[in-house]
Amino acid sequence: MNCVNEILAAIGKAGKNPDGSYTRACFSREYKEAAETAKELMREQGLEASMDAVWNVRGGLGGSEPGLGTIIIGSHLDTVPGGGLYDGAFGVAAGIEAARRLKEEGRALRHSLEIWGFNGEESNPFGGTFGSRAVCGLVDPAQPGLAEALAGVGLTTDDVLACAKDFSGVKCYLEAHIEQGDRLYRDGLDIGAVSGIVSVIRYRVTAIGQANHAGTTAMKDRSDALVAMSKLIVEAEKSCRGIDDALVFTVGTLSLEPGSENVIPGRVSCCFEFRHMDRRVTDLFLERIREIASGIKTVSFDISPMVDKGSVKCDPRLISVIDRAAEDLGYSHAVVPSGAGHDANPMAHRVPIGMVFVPSEGGFSHCGEEYTKPEDLRKGADVLYRALLTLDEEE
Amino acid sequence: MNCVNEILAAIGKAGKNPDGSYTRACFSREYKEAAETAKELMREQGLEASMDAVWNVRGGLGGSEPGLGTIIIGSHLDTVPGGGLYDGAFGVAAGIEAARRLKEEGRALRHSLEIWGFNGEESNPFGGTFGSRAVCGLVDPAQPGLAEALAGVGLTTDDVLACAKDFSGVKCYLEAHIEQGDRLYRDGLDIGAVSGIVSVIRYRVTAIGQANHAGTTAMKDRSDALVAMSKLIVEAEKSCRGIDDALVFTVGTLSLEPGSENVIPGRVSCCFEFRHMDRRVTDLFLERIREIASGIKTVSFDISPMVDKGSVKCDPRLISVIDRAAEDLGYSHAVVPSGAGHDANPMAHRVPIGMVFVPSEGGFSHCGEEYTKPEDLRKGADVLYRALLTLDEEE
Repeated sequence: MNCVNEILAAIGKAGKNPDGSYTRACFSREYKEAAETAKELMREQGLEASMDAVWNVRGGLGGSEPGLGTIIIGSHLDTVPGGGLYDGAFGVAAGIEAARRLKEEGRALRHSLEIWGFNGEESNPFGGTFGSRAVCGLVDPAQPGLAEALAGVGLTTDDVLACAKDFSGVKCYLEAHIEQGDRLYRDGLDIGAVSGIVSVIRYRVTAIGQANHAGTTAMKDRSDALVAMSKLIVEAEKSCRGIDDALVFTVGTLSLEPGSENVIPGRVSCCFEFRHMDRRVTDLFLERIREIASGIKTVSFDISPMVDKGSVKCDPRLISVIDRAAEDLGYSHAVVPSGAGHDANPMAHRVPIGMVFVPSEGGFSHCGEEYTKPEDLRKGADVLYRALLTLDEEE
Repeated sequence: MNCVNEILAAIGKAGKNPDGSYTRACFSREYKEAAETAKELMREQGLEASMDAVWNVRGGLGGSEPGLGTIIIGSHLDTVPGGGLYDGAFGVAAGIEAARRLKEEGRALRHSLEIWGFNGEESNPFGGTFGSRAVCGLVDPAQPGLAEALAGVGLTTDDVLACAKDFSGVKCYLEAHIEQGDRLYRDGLDIGAVSGIVSVIRYRVTAIGQANHAGTTAMKDRSDALVAMSKLIVEAEKSCRGIDDALVFTVGTLSLEPGSENVIPGRVSCCFEFRHMDRRVTDLFLERIREIASGIKTVSFDISPMVDKGSVKCDPRLISVIDRAAEDLGYSHAVVPSGAGHDANPMAHRVPIGMVFVPSEGGFSHCGEEYTKPEDLRKGADVLYRALLTLDEEE
């Protein structure tokens, strides 16, 4: 028996929108509801469960041989605005399902086990992978705006620093997740053993023009920040396509000032995000963006770094354990890269990481259309459980 | 003596931002403060002053010959966000200054006089020229969203309808205003007698793509609503420049969904505004926009009308009275069109209108840089007063 779908459905009672999508923002009421549910589900499986200061949920189960390192299984419980049921919550559900099966089978692990449901993996005012970075001791308390943002949810940077875990007694970190891309779906594969996670690089790009009256300023006299930013976006997108098929470029936020129908925008600010496994490719693309911007003479551009998460590699031994588990269970599988960042990114700075991917129908995620078949979720949970048992046989 | 600068400074105490710009939004606390100031200033000049349900200020002074039509002088007291001191408030100040001079000179007009300070001329949730449209009985109570927006400020559509004035006893409407364009400034002219006001046409343009994960969706598989909208803006701007030098095109607002750094925008909505005196020119431009949109295949576009204020002509007799007043006072002058809409637009549906323009330094308006020299404001108030006295000699 495998209850991962039931567990996921229980978590998914929180933050469901009328259109069927999900919104569980970092530190929101909806997130908290999901976290409380996960905590209860962990307790039902015999884990000691609690929530830390940044609202991460942790469930712990002592191993029979205290000298061995802890195996951590985790993922996140927050979602993007209007996201899906699966992104994040599936990995937490698969962890809880592993604990359920241990209990059902009356099996005691030699290693201690921890299941984590992290807060704030998606973009948020505290920075993405916020909860797991707090656990990994990777939150910089001097990060601009962090103290103010934390004050808004009644926390201090000291509270966040106190969430840092001692990783000296940890063996590895495992995470199950939907692929979000369409590689597995397109190729009809059940399982992906993840090879590594691409970099995520973000720049704040601001076009500085001159606000003026929309009716009385001749076109030739304008310094229109939105027209200039539109040119930069169009040309940068064209450049991205020309550099490398695996390079992706997204402008997901845009704000303009003053933002009135009858005023020429004087200032437009965007987040330019690009991802690739190879630093040389992203460096080249940034150089191209700067060239295009300098060729647009009607405004000035400011291009400032926001986020630079380097690419990370999964542990070769864990890749092989996961790949082998899929093979032993008779599921079709491949070793695939991850185009998305995960809580496994900060974890990779502390311990070996391994990830199990299940297919995303149509490659959709971060939207209401996000979907993975119950059968595929079940297979993912099976592989995670089998990998856990294999790893428990090691030291 | 001419105190228009002092009167304007008194009104300008309300809504001043730390950066020196002004924000007095429709139905805001700052607007109300300016309106209360205007009311007090009117009373000081012996006018009977009051505020109507939509927060317009009206000051009335009875004429010596009750059978003659009322002369109205008006403009608005609200500003765009981060706008200037002069746009709107100057015209109200010039009206109050005319009343002050009548009192100082012990002069009684034959015609009754009304001075109006209107609310909500700038873009706002109730529609631009809201206050003057209410007075002119031109607010459609069935306008989508109006009842809800009014409820937010404690009003009903019946309250608005009750603001409509009977215009059967009105002779004409006069408005003094900064030019906002740079024609007078560039040509070193003191006064513009306005010939007419261009149309203001606005369409809600929405690009409908597909939200998806920014890291895992290959560029070739994207339906990115922001990239598509950027292409449309760039090409439409290019097309506008090719059609006619006097045609202007502005995208002043843009919203995108879901609006997260790591999600491809699935939906982007903008206001496309364009203005020209000639309907055939704006019709041609709209046709071009539709053609460009239909050529962008990665998304679908919805292009829906929002606002269509036709161009209006000033009354030939009033143009001549204003032009002659400037000549008699020894000020340099020209007959010029208005690229901006004004409270005179709705008034033109009820009575003959005339407008007096003063120069905008550098052509700036709707921004903190908006500026008109005290000397130029004084000349504008002089012309308005002289035109008033000339008109008072007529029937």
